[in-house]
Amino acid sequence: MCLSVSFLGGGSFGTALSIMLAKKGIEVNLWDRKDTIVQDINVKRENIKYLHKVLIPKGVKASVNAEQVINKSQVLVLAVPSQAIREVCKNFKQFINKDQIIVNIAKGIEEKTGKRLSQVIEEELPENKVAVLSGPSHAEEVARDIPTTVVVSSKDVECGKKIQNLFMTNKFRVYTNKDIVGVEIGGAVKNIIALASGISDGIGYGDNSKAALMTRGIAEIVRIGERLGGKRETFSGLSGIGDLIVTCTSMHSRNRRAGILIGQGKSMEEAVKEVNMVVEGIAACKAFYELKSRLNVEMPITEALYEILFKGKDPRYIVYELMTRAKKSEVY
Amino acid sequence: MCLSVSFLGGGSFGTALSIMLAKKGIEVNLWDRKDTIVQDINVKRENIKYLHKVLIPKGVKASVNAEQVINKSQVLVLAVPSQAIREVCKNFKQFINKDQIIVNIAKGIEEKTGKRLSQVIEEELPENKVAVLSGPSHAEEVARDIPTTVVVSSKDVECGKKIQNLFMTNKFRVYTNKDIVGVEIGGAVKNIIALASGISDGIGYGDNSKAALMTRGIAEIVRIGERLGGKRETFSGLSGIGDLIVTCTSMHSRNRRAGILIGQGKSMEEAVKEVNMVVEGIAACKAFYELKSRLNVEMPITEALYEILFKGKDPRYIVYELMTRAKKSEVY
Repeated sequence: MCLSVSFLGGGSFGTALSIMLAKKGIEVNLWDRKDTIVQDINVKRENIKYLHKVLIPKGVKASVNAEQVINKSQVLVLAVPSQAIREVCKNFKQFINKDQIIVNIAKGIEEKTGKRLSQVIEEELPENKVAVLSGPSHAEEVARDIPTTVVVSSKDVECGKKIQNLFMTNKFRVYTNKDIVGVEIGGAVKNIIALASGISDGIGYGDNSKAALMTRGIAEIVRIGERLGGKRETFSGLSGIGDLIVTCTSMHSRNRRAGILIGQGKSMEEAVKEVNMVVEGIAACKAFYELKSRLNVEMPITEALYEILFKGKDPRYIVYELMTRAKKSEVY
Repeated sequence: MCLSVSFLGGGSFGTALSIMLAKKGIEVNLWDRKDTIVQDINVKRENIKYLHKVLIPKGVKASVNAEQVINKSQVLVLAVPSQAIREVCKNFKQFINKDQIIVNIAKGIEEKTGKRLSQVIEEELPENKVAVLSGPSHAEEVARDIPTTVVVSSKDVECGKKIQNLFMTNKFRVYTNKDIVGVEIGGAVKNIIALASGISDGIGYGDNSKAALMTRGIAEIVRIGERLGGKRETFSGLSGIGDLIVTCTSMHSRNRRAGILIGQGKSMEEAVKEVNMVVEGIAACKAFYELKSRLNVEMPITEALYEILFKGKDPRYIVYELMTRAKKSEVY
């Protein structure tokens, strides 16, 4: 049993998981580059910016000193935005021991390379075992012990099981899934669909329109996901449909919230500023727009979102394809 | 082109479709057994009980005289609750012409026999062609011209296309799907999952819990649906996942609303009384509980809901299976 876990990054999900592990009696050390967050955690016992009004138990110790934080653990959780993962791995490589298991909880894809995040980690830390944790798990609810189910995936089955045991509680149920490609692609693309769904909501379209968009979005995830080597069953599971549902329908979703603002007429920049957290769907949209063009995979929602975000197209374009495409038979 | 359509039943969805067709210039005659509804439609131009604050155009004419209503049309829409379909077919058989296409818009399954509704219609009206219309389409939004997509299915391809053309507008997009078994089973089982999701919401569980429940619900639909002869692709489409999403997440859903009340501690009878409309998921739950036992198909959510509705089990049982089942690998 792992008795000490380090977190790199004090965002909402990292903080929520820290709280959960500390309640299990595990020693948690958390690094963040911002002194305000470290102080808030250590002194106020609250992550005011990212996880408002949740008490952080004493078992969570925060620090701005990465070396000290990393040193202490058998498991290292990367809890930084997807586009920061390579840099964080590079910067802290010197402190990381090859026996530490790296667990990534960010959902995205590297914008510049189109690589999955576990690939990025493996490139930077080739000796370490890597696992990813994904699924419908808003931090605000995890931190409050609301029943949640997630998936852990690792190429190494034993490593996957270790991480499963580490995180499992009676309110946080962890399943394993060997298909790391499917788990990572589902988690990345769902943020694109959530942004699109938010736009639909922001315009004032209804639940019918959004359900249609989400249904088409699932088809889009399956198409690109299978092309990249993921398994269809994975996309039907917690890290696919499950996470898509929660991200497209919950007000906890920052991607959806950003979409709502864009649907209401704000620019991408204004929306991101107002949400005041990283909106993963934006980088994902860029990366998958490149990928789908290169691989010749049909991704009409990603394409429409790209045009809206980066080419100034009218947000109403997001349901345009849905209501006008030529085919009249329902084929997915 | 069909110029005259009759509706049997002035509920919310039937009324919404009537309004939509009348706006297209189609002559609509609507029968309802209740004089108050007929009067409200004809005089107040509003279906006060079922579709509050939506203007009904003059092209919709209501009557309590079924013979006159049925006589006038090429297409007859059955817009009654699922358990009333056999009786309505029986009662009005004498007025129905064999050239009339019967379109069913109810979602359910016959409680006593476990038969799909198109099977029930074919038994009662063996000479008529039958189509079903399904998908994520809350009446409140259809009546207000919110972009909506649905599926029409018929064993007879030409009949399916006719009904597609009849209902298609630039805000109401109709796809065809030949898999009538899949379309009907998806529409029936989703009401069970919506009741269960409502219970989860009513208890105070979160979006994470509900997304997990819905993900398992989709697996349940696929299992029973394939066993009954439906196609997997259909369950991934609008009448499967699409309708499930809208029913489990929208406040327009009466099944979800009933579930919320049960989750808050009300009895099934109290919940139905408060919703004050037919809650299709209740009969569906009974029917599929029978079917799954007979066919030996795993339907844990249906089973849990059955125990809660009819055996007085604690509503929290609805997420119990989710959080405790033995398998730790995510297999669907």
